[in-house]
Amino acid sequence: MRASQLPLFTSKNDPNDAQVASHRLLSRAGFIRKQGSGLYAYLPFGDMVHRKIEQIVREEMNRFGGVEVSLPVITPAELWQESGRWDLMGKEMMRMQDRHEVGYALGPTHEEAMTDVARSFLQSYKQLPINLYQIGRKYRDEIRPRYGLIRCREFVMKDAYSFHADDKSLDETYQKMREAYRSIFERCGLKTIPVEADSGNMGGSGSEEFMVASSIGEETLLLCSDEACGYRSNQEKTAFIENPSRGGSRSAQDETAEDFETGALKTIEEVAKLTGQSPRDFIKAVIFEDAQNIFLCFVQGDRELSEIKMKNLAGATDYWLASEETINALTGAEPGYAGPVGIKFKDGEKVSKKTLRVFFDRHLKGRSGLITGANKTGYHTKNVAEGRDFTIAEGHDLIVSHAGDICPQCKKAELTETRGIEVGHIFKLGKKYSEKMKLSVLDPNGKPLTPTMGCYGIGVGRTMATSVEQNHDERGIIWHKNLTPFVIYLVSLAKAESEIAFVDQLYATLQAKGISVYLDDRDERAGVKFNDAELVGFPFIVTVGKKSIESGKLEVKLRRSGEKLELSETELVQLVMG
Amino acid sequence: MRASQLPLFTSKNDPNDAQVASHRLLSRAGFIRKQGSGLYAYLPFGDMVHRKIEQIVREEMNRFGGVEVSLPVITPAELWQESGRWDLMGKEMMRMQDRHEVGYALGPTHEEAMTDVARSFLQSYKQLPINLYQIGRKYRDEIRPRYGLIRCREFVMKDAYSFHADDKSLDETYQKMREAYRSIFERCGLKTIPVEADSGNMGGSGSEEFMVASSIGEETLLLCSDEACGYRSNQEKTAFIENPSRGGSRSAQDETAEDFETGALKTIEEVAKLTGQSPRDFIKAVIFEDAQNIFLCFVQGDRELSEIKMKNLAGATDYWLASEETINALTGAEPGYAGPVGIKFKDGEKVSKKTLRVFFDRHLKGRSGLITGANKTGYHTKNVAEGRDFTIAEGHDLIVSHAGDICPQCKKAELTETRGIEVGHIFKLGKKYSEKMKLSVLDPNGKPLTPTMGCYGIGVGRTMATSVEQNHDERGIIWHKNLTPFVIYLVSLAKAESEIAFVDQLYATLQAKGISVYLDDRDERAGVKFNDAELVGFPFIVTVGKKSIESGKLEVKLRRSGEKLELSETELVQLVMG
Repeated sequence: MRASQLPLFTSKNDPNDAQVASHRLLSRAGFIRKQGSGLYAYLPFGDMVHRKIEQIVREEMNRFGGVEVSLPVITPAELWQESGRWDLMGKEMMRMQDRHEVGYALGPTHEEAMTDVARSFLQSYKQLPINLYQIGRKYRDEIRPRYGLIRCREFVMKDAYSFHADDKSLDETYQKMREAYRSIFERCGLKTIPVEADSGNMGGSGSEEFMVASSIGEETLLLCSDEACGYRSNQEKTAFIENPSRGGSRSAQDETAEDFETGALKTIEEVAKLTGQSPRDFIKAVIFEDAQNIFLCFVQGDRELSEIKMKNLAGATDYWLASEETINALTGAEPGYAGPVGIKFKDGEKVSKKTLRVFFDRHLKGRSGLITGANKTGYHTKNVAEGRDFTIAEGHDLIVSHAGDICPQCKKAELTETRGIEVGHIFKLGKKYSEKMKLSVLDPNGKPLTPTMGCYGIGVGRTMATSVEQNHDERGIIWHKNLTPFVIYLVSLAKAESEIAFVDQLYATLQAKGISVYLDDRDERAGVKFNDAELVGFPFIVTVGKKSIESGKLEVKLRRSGEKLELSETELVQLVMG
Repeated sequence: MRASQLPLFTSKNDPNDAQVASHRLLSRAGFIRKQGSGLYAYLPFGDMVHRKIEQIVREEMNRFGGVEVSLPVITPAELWQESGRWDLMGKEMMRMQDRHEVGYALGPTHEEAMTDVARSFLQSYKQLPINLYQIGRKYRDEIRPRYGLIRCREFVMKDAYSFHADDKSLDETYQKMREAYRSIFERCGLKTIPVEADSGNMGGSGSEEFMVASSIGEETLLLCSDEACGYRSNQEKTAFIENPSRGGSRSAQDETAEDFETGALKTIEEVAKLTGQSPRDFIKAVIFEDAQNIFLCFVQGDRELSEIKMKNLAGATDYWLASEETINALTGAEPGYAGPVGIKFKDGEKVSKKTLRVFFDRHLKGRSGLITGANKTGYHTKNVAEGRDFTIAEGHDLIVSHAGDICPQCKKAELTETRGIEVGHIFKLGKKYSEKMKLSVLDPNGKPLTPTMGCYGIGVGRTMATSVEQNHDERGIIWHKNLTPFVIYLVSLAKAESEIAFVDQLYATLQAKGISVYLDDRDERAGVKFNDAELVGFPFIVTVGKKSIESGKLEVKLRRSGEKLELSETELVQLVMG
């Protein structure tokens, strides 16, 4: 293509709200343009890259047994009501009503819709397994859309949903999808880190995220420092094991538990100072409630409670920090004095019409010499021992893990931390949707069988953006050969008619060899063309003018390395196609 | 592909709400599935056909100078407010609010959004002309979605928007798009009729629809019966010229106009009976009003007023039939007695704070011996003559044309009528959007220039459905070779292992020749496979079993003609590829 047919949409200025490289460069290079908060138009080059990624995804999905379909973007509320997610999805799900006041969601994901399609045609176990995928628009009403294509409100995803007669079959497809994803990201030239992940409100038994390491990532990944172990996990999923080097706290089984006055000192840090004991010797209480329950959680005083772990454990969805009233009814004291000793209620009892549910982190098991709130305003209790003053029937994993904790896989090495952007996510969903939506087939004995499901997502626009995050320099984008809109950016400096004819001939020859060429034939200064060539980032920048025509050597610049070569036409073809 | 990899989604039953062939057959053949009112999922075969049409559209758009982009589906209300269409689009436009109560439309069309993109990068006349297109989802909240893909609420369209320095350039692109459309529909094997069309609320000077003739079409087309003339138009656009053979009414210039009592008789038919004069001799008054104006329209008594023509003439958008109160204020009489003689107000005068605007159909010019309401309850006036009792300064085209009227192009032959489904529509928009949205570039003299625009739409799903309307029989769909999911439907009747090996070999050989084959290797009766093969409608049905293996001849059935052939493998390849 020529610039006279397919114009450049480059700009000298960064968007005002661009905080990250991909947003800044994709905008300046004219690949995308903002049309509203979190809403982006793909301009010609951007659309080309986007469709190349789509095609790579499509080919790999087909290769690994996926079957392409296309579902409506707007999904009837009744499907979401069947699964129970209409209420669960909260404000992130965009909703609308039609002229008859019937409700719809702009699908953020399509488990319900695809299960609805599946139940319309699946009749027999013989039709299983099947893996249906689509590539289409998704919607998420982010509170704070940002980073351009990385966190926007309308975006293109590939989402696949598989249906199986048994867990073995699900596992086979799950492994195939892992392979497909590795292959997709490899073909896109993207380095990803697969990590164990939390399943969130998707339900299901296992999930893995494909992360792009990036300082702007909103996810924290914990990696085992022993490469032989290779454990990698999303922080929110990582089981906490305390590093023994952090231990060495007080143990005093023989001293009797005793209340002491702490006056206005409420925080663990304040009381630790008063007593001279380390925060690690404290029991931290965190109390949530929902419409039916009070969730009373105890963790070691120096660590943070993981709300995600608590939520998953309790099966809670719509919950909040307990009110002063609730805390008072439960402990008989003001907030800040809750503790496991001498609390008026027991696990399962009713407190102000709600059921009390008590959760202990497993690291509190067997500890003694602990300090905790006394359930009495202005008092704490010291020399508290588990097993004597209170009992942990079952300890749970409730603490947020961090770098320096022990790897939960090898149980030896320490964890290290890095930031990541999620570009893909695969889930074993189990029967959550098939059961709720009554998807059933006949098994070999003619008995009803509820299929088990998996689902597999990739963000197409986010793949494009993270590719730029990983591949750019101060002058612009550096595209991978499989994603670039064109392979060669041909800068024409031709002025005389014979020179123009030479460039046209070269352009025709390269295209005839099957090489995609963008010919910058604009009436602009050489500097403007060079800058644009570097900004848009095609792999080879070839300059042709009077000088190169006379010498018979084309000036070739490799965008990635910056290396400059003088090549004959034949050598250029060899280099590009080699 | 094998049925064991890509299952059939066929069904024995028609959907309950299927009234037309394409809806019935695409559903039964498992190409589409309804997921809500006017919402359809594309199943694998349907998705394949849909993407083939998309690709044909893309190739032809690119060939004729289009540049592909992709805009967000949800468009901010503020863009629609800039153009004034936020209020104008009515209930057919689906709307929503985000979590911050900011309004959006699910774009039914993208003039505003594309003009917004254009104004962000167009700076100079040198960048013109440019024709930006996208292929994506569109939304229309139809009151009564029906006919499957033909009138649904979420659908895929190709929509293109061109920007030009002058009308000559716009006309060039408009002509290119006509060519592109002809080529697209030809490649899809679809017979279309291009007709003159009304521009509706798009604004602009010219427009043409591409219609598929069909008894289920919601549009009426009027065609000149003289093929040499070749005039074709949407009824709503067709200028009315009365057939002289319908003339022969009373002419009586010398008789004086005179009121006569008609009592409770109000309709033209009733008064015609009383007087013995033909309805053609009557003046029919139709009165509308909007917030600012009263529109008083007079047409010949035997014909229907065209609301579209009235609306376009008056520039009215949100209007309604005048209330009794308004009619009374205007005529001094009850509804049913309005006439052009002796009415209290003149064109442009204020009536109850609204401005009166009077429109006459041109066919009333010069007529005499007419009967009209007397603007007096219970009375009509007879012997009314134009030029004497009332005057038409400027006659307009206000009547709905029908078959039997005279062609407005050759002005000789009669028009004939047919029904049609719109599959494409091209418009000269003019400067409506560029002016309202302040799109401006610098002209060669450095002065601001407002580009003129065109827009060009094709319904992709509707193209697929109308292709089925034109190509099916009682057994199923008959796909055109460019649209069919697979070229050969290979029915395997193989039982013995050697037979299965033979079929596998044939399948591999055909695929190696580049022929797309769907191998029905299901464990089903031959009859089930034949029925499905005819239903899904691939061009060649090839049956292989013991008999054909022994004879060395494959049984080949041509889906369209039903012709049966016995061919060797080589002959089959020649036939398919020839």
